[in-house]
Amino acid sequence: MTQQSLDDKYMLMALRLAAKAQGRTSPNPMVGAVVVREGVVIARGYHRKAGEPHAEAIALAKAGEAARGATLYVTLEPCTHTGKRTPPCAPQVVQSGVARAVIAMTDPNPKVAGGGVKALQGAGIEVSTGVLEAEAKKLNEAYAKHILKGMPFVTLKIAQTLDGMIATASGESKWITGEEARREAHLLRDGNDAILVGINTVLKDDPALTTRVPKGRDPLRVIVDSRLRIPLKAKVLTQSSSAPTIIAALARAPKAKQLALQRAGIEVIIVKEKEGRVDLRDLMKRLGKREVTSVLIEGGSEINASALKAGIVDKVVIFVAPMLLSGRDSVSSIGGASPARLSNAVKLRDMTMRQVGTDLMIEAYVAR
Amino acid sequence: MTQQSLDDKYMLMALRLAAKAQGRTSPNPMVGAVVVREGVVIARGYHRKAGEPHAEAIALAKAGEAARGATLYVTLEPCTHTGKRTPPCAPQVVQSGVARAVIAMTDPNPKVAGGGVKALQGAGIEVSTGVLEAEAKKLNEAYAKHILKGMPFVTLKIAQTLDGMIATASGESKWITGEEARREAHLLRDGNDAILVGINTVLKDDPALTTRVPKGRDPLRVIVDSRLRIPLKAKVLTQSSSAPTIIAALARAPKAKQLALQRAGIEVIIVKEKEGRVDLRDLMKRLGKREVTSVLIEGGSEINASALKAGIVDKVVIFVAPMLLSGRDSVSSIGGASPARLSNAVKLRDMTMRQVGTDLMIEAYVAR
Repeated sequence: MTQQSLDDKYMLMALRLAAKAQGRTSPNPMVGAVVVREGVVIARGYHRKAGEPHAEAIALAKAGEAARGATLYVTLEPCTHTGKRTPPCAPQVVQSGVARAVIAMTDPNPKVAGGGVKALQGAGIEVSTGVLEAEAKKLNEAYAKHILKGMPFVTLKIAQTLDGMIATASGESKWITGEEARREAHLLRDGNDAILVGINTVLKDDPALTTRVPKGRDPLRVIVDSRLRIPLKAKVLTQSSSAPTIIAALARAPKAKQLALQRAGIEVIIVKEKEGRVDLRDLMKRLGKREVTSVLIEGGSEINASALKAGIVDKVVIFVAPMLLSGRDSVSSIGGASPARLSNAVKLRDMTMRQVGTDLMIEAYVAR
Repeated sequence: MTQQSLDDKYMLMALRLAAKAQGRTSPNPMVGAVVVREGVVIARGYHRKAGEPHAEAIALAKAGEAARGATLYVTLEPCTHTGKRTPPCAPQVVQSGVARAVIAMTDPNPKVAGGGVKALQGAGIEVSTGVLEAEAKKLNEAYAKHILKGMPFVTLKIAQTLDGMIATASGESKWITGEEARREAHLLRDGNDAILVGINTVLKDDPALTTRVPKGRDPLRVIVDSRLRIPLKAKVLTQSSSAPTIIAALARAPKAKQLALQRAGIEVIIVKEKEGRVDLRDLMKRLGKREVTSVLIEGGSEINASALKAGIVDKVVIFVAPMLLSGRDSVSSIGGASPARLSNAVKLRDMTMRQVGTDLMIEAYVAR
């Protein structure tokens, strides 16, 4: 094997370690590290949770004296700043005595941004960067957006027929996609910090919005409910769950209802108004400040349109069922006002797809 | 190489030869043949056009005496019946002296249906069937439907945004998909016997409905125009093309317009009425009788819905552009009345996809 293919192999191992903590590390990135000496993996580590040790610190501590002269593979540039509860990693890497560090991507955090690489090089460590960089960037796309923009990375998830319908005219939508696709959707919930729906979805379906996969944890639930129409008995408010539900409302929502919700232990956040509705961009800013780095929108036709119009959507994940619903009055996946021109359509880039059971899963990024 | 992988290899060669005549052999099937002797391809042939020699006859004639003891690969069971202008193939295969015949699929034509295989076996030729059978069946799916049902195989082609829209509210649809997808669409035209649109498409876009690919030939154009609203100056009527345009109208269409069209050399066929419109099933039967084995529907939202409702659609080919149009009043790919229940949706099977330029091409069959 060439050095490059060996580097790819160990970096892939580190990336897989990192991904084990998907949805668990916010607002920190997911990071994995592998220490290799003379062709043998002598230690591994990954960052499990904010406040807990970083990946390279874990791996190097495990390796101990054996790290001297070894190669460290790490999916993200070692940090140079002291975190809330953790010391910087770059000095620890230097102290470990590794001869070489292979890094997938530099840290987009302006407090690091190349400083880690410089610190290692300054200490005489051979540094290679950019190994499986695209994969590493994708893994931490939410972290990168949050650290740079202060806003969560937003994924719009839709389950539709091949002709773009998400429900019959009467609202029937269970189930368009198959079991495997629904399981993938639960994995998306598991990997996102928050899940967002509109009040209409709550009123119509009374959904649980929990994660139903083994070892899953529930994301924070965010209900967009301008006028606080949510019933106190709604499942999202009363069920037992590992995460709370918060309601985003307008200042002019009934005060009495707001108090009733607060008495029931439910948090209501008041956001700016835009065209009579909750300003989704303001809501995202507020969520960003609370260290929510990723939001999964699982709303209906209208909230999907509002989110796209507000420019908060980064990525779409569309499950397409082998089915044509048809019908002028059926509910299409994205409603809202119709754009005057085709050139007003939202352009997507990097569209990829895969088969999930009998459905397709199409992923694409909003082009800006 | 094992015998099986050798068989696959030569059959693939024969299938590729057969496919060279895509869109040219109707109402006959596409057939390819390869003669192999001691590991060397000694002759090839394919059926170019109805009335011209069959694939195996061409290949065996080329091989001559060398065919004795060789293996014949043929994508469809040799025929046993005398065609309009061609003798049966099975006796020619026997006479050639080949020791073995490898056949992809038996002929669905009830006049053959296994008779060819029996004739060869009866003459002491070793026969293997079912080699690359799925590929062979797909290649001749139109032939099979036409020979069994007397109706053309109907493909519904749609170019849509990822959210299922084919035009803005004002009808703008140029261009949703990219150049590569449009080229694929022209290859579909080239491969189908006829192309069908509704009168609204003619009135709105005045399309040419010709095939614009190198060596392409135009399919027969069928315009569904219940009340004969087509202008005599429409491009589909006046342009020079290798294929004619026919108009499908109702008996109650204005007689004067019908005469005017006929005087201009345009054929008008009168079909049954169903719910005030042209009965598409009756139209397909008439086209089937004229030896049209395949029809490509490139209509708008409403004709797409009518075709699905009439149960004439066998396959859908949907080009999906990386774009979200959104909008309650945008034109979705399949209109018509909305079904009451999700269980009324048209179910599809064998959905496959591939990337075509920046678009996706999704193919699926209507499940019955």
